[in-house]
Amino acid sequence: MRISLIYTQSFLSREAQHVEGFAKECAVVTHHRLMNAPDGSGVIVDPDSKLEEELIVRPTSETIIWNTYRDWISSYRDLPLLINQWCNVVRWEMRTRLFLRTAEFLWQEGHTAHATAQEAIDETRLMLDVYAEFAEKWMAMPVIKGVKTPNERFAGAVDTYCIEALMQDGKALQAGTSHFLGQNFAKAFDVKFLSENNVEDYVWATSWGVSTRLIGGLIMTHSDDEGLVIPPKLAPTQVVIVPIPKPSPEIGEAADKIMRELRAKGITVKYDTDMKKRPGFKFAEYEMRGIPVRLAIGERDLANNQVEVARRDTKEKSSQPLEGIADYVAQLLEDIQQNLFQRACDYRAEHITAVDNFDDFQAVLDGKGGFVSAHWDGTTETELKIKELTKATIRCIPLDNPLEDGACVLTGKPSTQRVLFARAY
Amino acid sequence: MRISLIYTQSFLSREAQHVEGFAKECAVVTHHRLMNAPDGSGVIVDPDSKLEEELIVRPTSETIIWNTYRDWISSYRDLPLLINQWCNVVRWEMRTRLFLRTAEFLWQEGHTAHATAQEAIDETRLMLDVYAEFAEKWMAMPVIKGVKTPNERFAGAVDTYCIEALMQDGKALQAGTSHFLGQNFAKAFDVKFLSENNVEDYVWATSWGVSTRLIGGLIMTHSDDEGLVIPPKLAPTQVVIVPIPKPSPEIGEAADKIMRELRAKGITVKYDTDMKKRPGFKFAEYEMRGIPVRLAIGERDLANNQVEVARRDTKEKSSQPLEGIADYVAQLLEDIQQNLFQRACDYRAEHITAVDNFDDFQAVLDGKGGFVSAHWDGTTETELKIKELTKATIRCIPLDNPLEDGACVLTGKPSTQRVLFARAY
Repeated sequence: MRISLIYTQSFLSREAQHVEGFAKECAVVTHHRLMNAPDGSGVIVDPDSKLEEELIVRPTSETIIWNTYRDWISSYRDLPLLINQWCNVVRWEMRTRLFLRTAEFLWQEGHTAHATAQEAIDETRLMLDVYAEFAEKWMAMPVIKGVKTPNERFAGAVDTYCIEALMQDGKALQAGTSHFLGQNFAKAFDVKFLSENNVEDYVWATSWGVSTRLIGGLIMTHSDDEGLVIPPKLAPTQVVIVPIPKPSPEIGEAADKIMRELRAKGITVKYDTDMKKRPGFKFAEYEMRGIPVRLAIGERDLANNQVEVARRDTKEKSSQPLEGIADYVAQLLEDIQQNLFQRACDYRAEHITAVDNFDDFQAVLDGKGGFVSAHWDGTTETELKIKELTKATIRCIPLDNPLEDGACVLTGKPSTQRVLFARAY
Repeated sequence: MRISLIYTQSFLSREAQHVEGFAKECAVVTHHRLMNAPDGSGVIVDPDSKLEEELIVRPTSETIIWNTYRDWISSYRDLPLLINQWCNVVRWEMRTRLFLRTAEFLWQEGHTAHATAQEAIDETRLMLDVYAEFAEKWMAMPVIKGVKTPNERFAGAVDTYCIEALMQDGKALQAGTSHFLGQNFAKAFDVKFLSENNVEDYVWATSWGVSTRLIGGLIMTHSDDEGLVIPPKLAPTQVVIVPIPKPSPEIGEAADKIMRELRAKGITVKYDTDMKKRPGFKFAEYEMRGIPVRLAIGERDLANNQVEVARRDTKEKSSQPLEGIADYVAQLLEDIQQNLFQRACDYRAEHITAVDNFDDFQAVLDGKGGFVSAHWDGTTETELKIKELTKATIRCIPLDNPLEDGACVLTGKPSTQRVLFARAY
């Protein structure tokens, strides 16, 4: 199932909040033909090919999905319905940043339709949990699950849930979103169903997505000045074996044995047989590529029945016995995965700062950065004023937020809970 | 690796033949913003968002690939280089046809760079063979490997190789292409390399692709009035078990045993436990979906230790002993795969007609259709005239074509070989 790349802009007009939102910065197709320039200088747009109605390159697909769902849904028996597509979308960006903010990006977008509000809300929360689990268990990137303020909500959503991560430079990254859309798109596109009790009602909806931005998040969460640091669970090559100073039959034999043992455990391993590069060059190269574990084997190591093991995350090296090396490496990969996650959790813990006045608020943002936990009076006006003054936005209201009485950090008006502010990508 | 969806149209101007060719019918992006209409009727294009240089949505990616290769290639050590991407492309089509010709389609496009012409030619032929093997061995769709005439060549190619299939309605389908691009794109984008002997030269290139059009080819090669017929090797579900008249513990137990045996052989199987639909409805449904083998089991079958086996391709039914049923089904799936291929080969053999005069040429096209094998004087002028008169194009000059003296079917001028004409999708 795939929904088309280009659709008429009139679709966008259907859901009023949707069009009020982000959807205006997009690539607009107005013509369908180029022609040779009369002066022979190349090609120009053929003015005769102007389209009657302009098309836009999809910035997201809710409108065309719901225009299609109208034909597919008429009864409770057609529900629930889930369509997921992996595709590219285009959003016009003034300033782009590799992996984090690009005019075209690849993502996965899921769209569901339900008979009840509760089922749709459950689905929204379920996908938020799926995204959070992937971020933490696989990417070793801790995230805060929360809900967006009305101002930061997806255009057309009733509630936008999100996972927010913190990069090593103290800036936040929205890493995934899951939207409860209520009946907004169903009403805009007239998608009704007949319930089991023969009552007609509009369908309830969700949508959710993560993008190649996660790759940027992974890089900026773990990497260091030597290059990439990739969590073992996602590393295409988990272990590399480097012969010292170069390949020999004896080292090759030992490497083969290690590779067999590691592969039997499902660990990916490469033996570097390049004769031309020196070990130091190789070490730097594999560090740059973020390979979690490096084994170095020389003739002297073999004589001592040992191997040098270096881990990418801490750069610690140690000599380990060849006997049982596969078990040692398997455990080490788990330790690295855990250490990366813990290190990122520690960094984040140090960079969530509770503040109670605006001077401190600004000082933290200009100083160590990270999340600022502060009271807010709940109005969009205040939120926008703070953004204007500090460039910080409310990243989310955490799901497990404790309620406490307080005063808004800007206006001093009463507040019932702290929210998380940060400068963000 | 992924190359962007949108690029500036000036890229297209670089390779003169490329821009002379197909690339003019494309989606042109001229603006980057919509705005609310002053009358509140919806959204309109914001005139202030006009782009300084128009962008086009990629119809193919040679130009942007070669603009990138210039930065990547400087020495023979950088060669050969292969980039493959799965992506969507847009070509403006006046008349669309589901799966065969759509404005947006998904494809795989490969682009290689080589140090020598021979290596590039070998790559071009290798990929042609890969495509042909997939079409015949997996899709059971026989194809003719050939080379296109200059007029039908890919814009910018030195030679375009293709696989051509024949649909059941007698129309040909270009199912995949592989292009030897010579040094054309390297010259247009100034991509040079220093050889092992320190000589500077332009890089040699290929590109090749197949698209979702293959799905259309599969459907139109095998299906019938009852619905899809899917070759067993590509069927997501190869076997379905239908209980007669509905599920029971005894039938379920027998089905479980059969499923275990089939799955042990790597065969995908589904047991239909739906209580609400009748067997006749299920039979028609699975025929429509093209599931290669259907097993029906009733109480009487169990009493006789047998099962009814129906094959989708011929619709033949027979009773087979339960004992050894998995072996029987495994062999039957192979037979169906082979039969579908043979049936398509037979159909094609009956629809390649050698003709020696233009009356016969037209009569065959208007009658039984298919490929017409005829002499052609080798000129684009004649080729276009024949297309104008008959709507038939030269699909290819088959690779294994025998040379023979003859006279052009239109002009009577001398010719050294027959070529294949057909009306095509």
